[in-house]
Amino acid sequence: MTTPDPVVIGIDFGTLSGRALVVRVSDGAELGGAVHDYPHAVMDDALTAHRGEPLPPEWALQVPADYVEVLKTAVPAAVEAAGVSPEQVVGIGTDFTACTMVPTTADGTPLNELEEYGDRPHAYTKLWKHHAAQGQADRINELAHSRGEDWIGRYGGFISSEWEFAKGLQILEEDPELYAAIDHWVEAADWIVWQLTGQYVRNACTAGYKGIYQDGSYPSQDFLAALNPEFVDFVAEKLDHRIGELGANAGGLSEEAAGWTGLRPGIAVAVGNVDAHVTAPAADAVDSGQMVAIMGTSTCHVMNGDRLAEVPGMCGVVDGGILAGAWGYEAGQSGVGDIFGWYVDNQVPASYAEEAASRGIGLHELLTEKAAAQPVGAHGLVALDWHSGNRSVLVDHELSGLIVGLTLTTRPEEVYRALLEATAYGTRTIIEAFGDSGVPVTELVVAGGLLKNRFLMQLYSDITRLPISTIVSEQGPALGSAIHAAVAAGHYDDVRAAGAEMGGRVERAYTPDSAAADAYDELFAEYARLHDHFGRGGDDMMRRLKAIRRRAHAEQLAEQPAEQPTETAAAEGARA
Amino acid sequence: MTTPDPVVIGIDFGTLSGRALVVRVSDGAELGGAVHDYPHAVMDDALTAHRGEPLPPEWALQVPADYVEVLKTAVPAAVEAAGVSPEQVVGIGTDFTACTMVPTTADGTPLNELEEYGDRPHAYTKLWKHHAAQGQADRINELAHSRGEDWIGRYGGFISSEWEFAKGLQILEEDPELYAAIDHWVEAADWIVWQLTGQYVRNACTAGYKGIYQDGSYPSQDFLAALNPEFVDFVAEKLDHRIGELGANAGGLSEEAAGWTGLRPGIAVAVGNVDAHVTAPAADAVDSGQMVAIMGTSTCHVMNGDRLAEVPGMCGVVDGGILAGAWGYEAGQSGVGDIFGWYVDNQVPASYAEEAASRGIGLHELLTEKAAAQPVGAHGLVALDWHSGNRSVLVDHELSGLIVGLTLTTRPEEVYRALLEATAYGTRTIIEAFGDSGVPVTELVVAGGLLKNRFLMQLYSDITRLPISTIVSEQGPALGSAIHAAVAAGHYDDVRAAGAEMGGRVERAYTPDSAAADAYDELFAEYARLHDHFGRGGDDMMRRLKAIRRRAHAEQLAEQPAEQPTETAAAEGARA
Repeated sequence: MTTPDPVVIGIDFGTLSGRALVVRVSDGAELGGAVHDYPHAVMDDALTAHRGEPLPPEWALQVPADYVEVLKTAVPAAVEAAGVSPEQVVGIGTDFTACTMVPTTADGTPLNELEEYGDRPHAYTKLWKHHAAQGQADRINELAHSRGEDWIGRYGGFISSEWEFAKGLQILEEDPELYAAIDHWVEAADWIVWQLTGQYVRNACTAGYKGIYQDGSYPSQDFLAALNPEFVDFVAEKLDHRIGELGANAGGLSEEAAGWTGLRPGIAVAVGNVDAHVTAPAADAVDSGQMVAIMGTSTCHVMNGDRLAEVPGMCGVVDGGILAGAWGYEAGQSGVGDIFGWYVDNQVPASYAEEAASRGIGLHELLTEKAAAQPVGAHGLVALDWHSGNRSVLVDHELSGLIVGLTLTTRPEEVYRALLEATAYGTRTIIEAFGDSGVPVTELVVAGGLLKNRFLMQLYSDITRLPISTIVSEQGPALGSAIHAAVAAGHYDDVRAAGAEMGGRVERAYTPDSAAADAYDELFAEYARLHDHFGRGGDDMMRRLKAIRRRAHAEQLAEQPAEQPTETAAAEGARA
Repeated sequence: MTTPDPVVIGIDFGTLSGRALVVRVSDGAELGGAVHDYPHAVMDDALTAHRGEPLPPEWALQVPADYVEVLKTAVPAAVEAAGVSPEQVVGIGTDFTACTMVPTTADGTPLNELEEYGDRPHAYTKLWKHHAAQGQADRINELAHSRGEDWIGRYGGFISSEWEFAKGLQILEEDPELYAAIDHWVEAADWIVWQLTGQYVRNACTAGYKGIYQDGSYPSQDFLAALNPEFVDFVAEKLDHRIGELGANAGGLSEEAAGWTGLRPGIAVAVGNVDAHVTAPAADAVDSGQMVAIMGTSTCHVMNGDRLAEVPGMCGVVDGGILAGAWGYEAGQSGVGDIFGWYVDNQVPASYAEEAASRGIGLHELLTEKAAAQPVGAHGLVALDWHSGNRSVLVDHELSGLIVGLTLTTRPEEVYRALLEATAYGTRTIIEAFGDSGVPVTELVVAGGLLKNRFLMQLYSDITRLPISTIVSEQGPALGSAIHAAVAAGHYDDVRAAGAEMGGRVERAYTPDSAAADAYDELFAEYARLHDHFGRGGDDMMRRLKAIRRRAHAEQLAEQPAEQPTETAAAEGARA
């Protein structure tokens, strides 16, 4: 079955897999898709790509070749699943996790693919959730404030340890030889476009949000030298490159990439982009006041504004960062679905697993159902949703999760609900920071896997006192990438116009219940107190506990026998 | 098989069951025992003894007739198991949970056994862990301090909501009609001796610790009237009664009780006592500086001293409260093994249950083994062990459990270990309060079920920097009661002498590891900060959360349909 309609392909590179989706240009109909899991997934406790050497806490690495596998497998599979001819495909758009960084040679070869560097952890992709550069981020922030750098306000006052500069500085200071071998320090979002087109273009989105590119320039050489004299040429040598506007054509599909994907060489390839940012047009929600929350393992909030404001603790505001011609605001919560998943995997008893299995439902569903039976506040619990640190508004990955109010009658679903609520309080904290800075949020537009949990959605509406709209597509990022592909291919004038035709949302799918909202206000006040006590310097306990933890692990590693067993140890092993 | 040796029977009335133990008088040899579970166990969410009406949060009731069943079943069974003749039994001693209170008529009949009161929750025994009288306790404390009552210092500055006055005042204020029907407000420890002998004698231990009986008198009528005018005669009408010294004979076994137990009428029955307090002679640990910690669901600490000191937050100091002629100090932790049990039942995943089952071990054992593999501090966690409130040194049952330092890599055994450690930090907090008040602790003597966990014991030694001795007997309280029976029967001059022959401990079973102790010091400092912030007024969040929780439950109860279905509701039920 073929149709004469032009189609585009959106490819969403997530944390664990890449998904390709074939979309009709005329109306956004999703015709078919395919997913490919990264063979190496996330390397966060051992360098499984090379002998499995243990990694320190807070590391998170990936293997770039895994991304190319997605092009070779998921794209042809999606075309086949869609029942379209490769001839119909007029463009490709991509989005990626960010800030995810690949160290490469001049021609874009990742350093881990060079034999001499395959055993060096710093040669691998640093995934967004690599949190081991907090010390570098702290110094960047301290120096920026002490020097009065004007760009720091564009990032809510904090540069994250997840971003390009902190991660780069970590390499310099921990493996200077490898640092010297880096010709380009490349966002994975741009690296994948480089693989598709043979051309390196930095996208305006990650350059602005993660690369501290503001008003046409990066942090100065003076600033870099003050951080570390050896870092002085970081921008000039490894980072600076031409910037492409979102939705623009980065170049045609190369012969090589056409071979991988089975598509026609020369079709449009959109400039790289980020999963959250492409979702705004996929939900047809690109107006001021429409905050799009992409709720999955973490939550990313994006919202366009017609004016520039400096919101404390936001991730950033970037001119054209979401949509060319608008100020793009971004904020985020570093752990959301991840926290619920951690809880279900680690803290829910066998009796619940048996009940869920006997009823043929999942543990999340069972816990949600049990939790929903209680009135607001009946669990007497408040949690801090910082198991993966705090992105907005505190920007501190040394923070950790907390729960207070536990009793001997506390049930598993009560803790689960407290965790759901904590993430909603985190969202409210962000929304209030925007409102207080003159960028009011009037509608919460939810995308991502968690929107399926209706109890969670109602709870977010009650806690934020906002109407919640939900994206129609179940593949928001891939659809958003496809929308950008359609623009890059010239089928729409701009991303807003393409989103209006190809994207969509259910307006006011949830509205606040005022009694519940009143009850939640009281619990939110307690959350805010914990937030400020542990997050704003009342007690830096969480930082100290992380330091103690790191030291204990380091001491344990130092005490373990060397990787190569000695003859004696091997002989003992044989006897055992 | 019979022997000519005289034997005694110790009966330990615990939270869920009563245990009778037959012990040889000459050397303390434990010849046989039997356990009987209370049919109604603990009624903490519903009045299961009467139609199952729901109970509010924090209630905990029992049925006194369940205790008599122990006399009828466990005592004869123990005699049979011991292979002795009933003729050999020369005395009975008992110990009880405390403060556990029975409202009775003039002849000792519990009010719940009267038909007109069987449906009234306040007519039942209020178990030690009934925590619904916190408001009354707060007022008692406030008033005592404002009036400068000299007895308040004997209780560390706090009267507990668990004790005789708070629980009694709760009845007056919530069910005045039932309060008026109470002729005696009796410690279960004394009520059971009343059943055995037909005579009501208040024991010096609970009268002192739980009944505010100091230097020969109770709180004054002025004080009682200031609490509530209707409370003015509480002591004179319902509490005051003759006091018996510990180890004295309260009276001979009555004909009726002889019939229940199969023993000879007229044999000695020791004055009532408390589980923790009888354990000190059972461990042969009655000297100054020997703190006996009975570690089970909760921990009780008892220690004799040769002088009077007022230790902030202790449960009490009572002349002759443990041993006639010495100042008996008591402190306690309201949740210990209970917390570990709650965690295992509610927060450990199926995969762990499967691993434990496949290896034929328990979950506690599995978690302990996994936790022990980590160095101190590697989990990065600190918990507050207040899931059941805090007895010493804060004396506040409105406090609740807390854990900080959670991350997405936190494993179940890490939280478990943090809970083990938290209880040890709680013990250290108590030991430091004693030392700071001039009553130094030089040896920790552990009894109770938790001493089987060797990892836990070493951790307590490391955290307290004290040598730990362990009791020899696995039935410390029952043995201690038997020791008191032997004294009451005239076979020893006093309890100290009887304990030296019949009791015993393993000295220095554990000694501190100095490297671990140093590492724990750093974590204890964090515990102490949390302790003071949440427990000493830095933030009263825990109290507020409990209030919110109570209100939410009360609103939910109010919204539920009435107990008696109306005709309409019944008809609807029939249609359903």
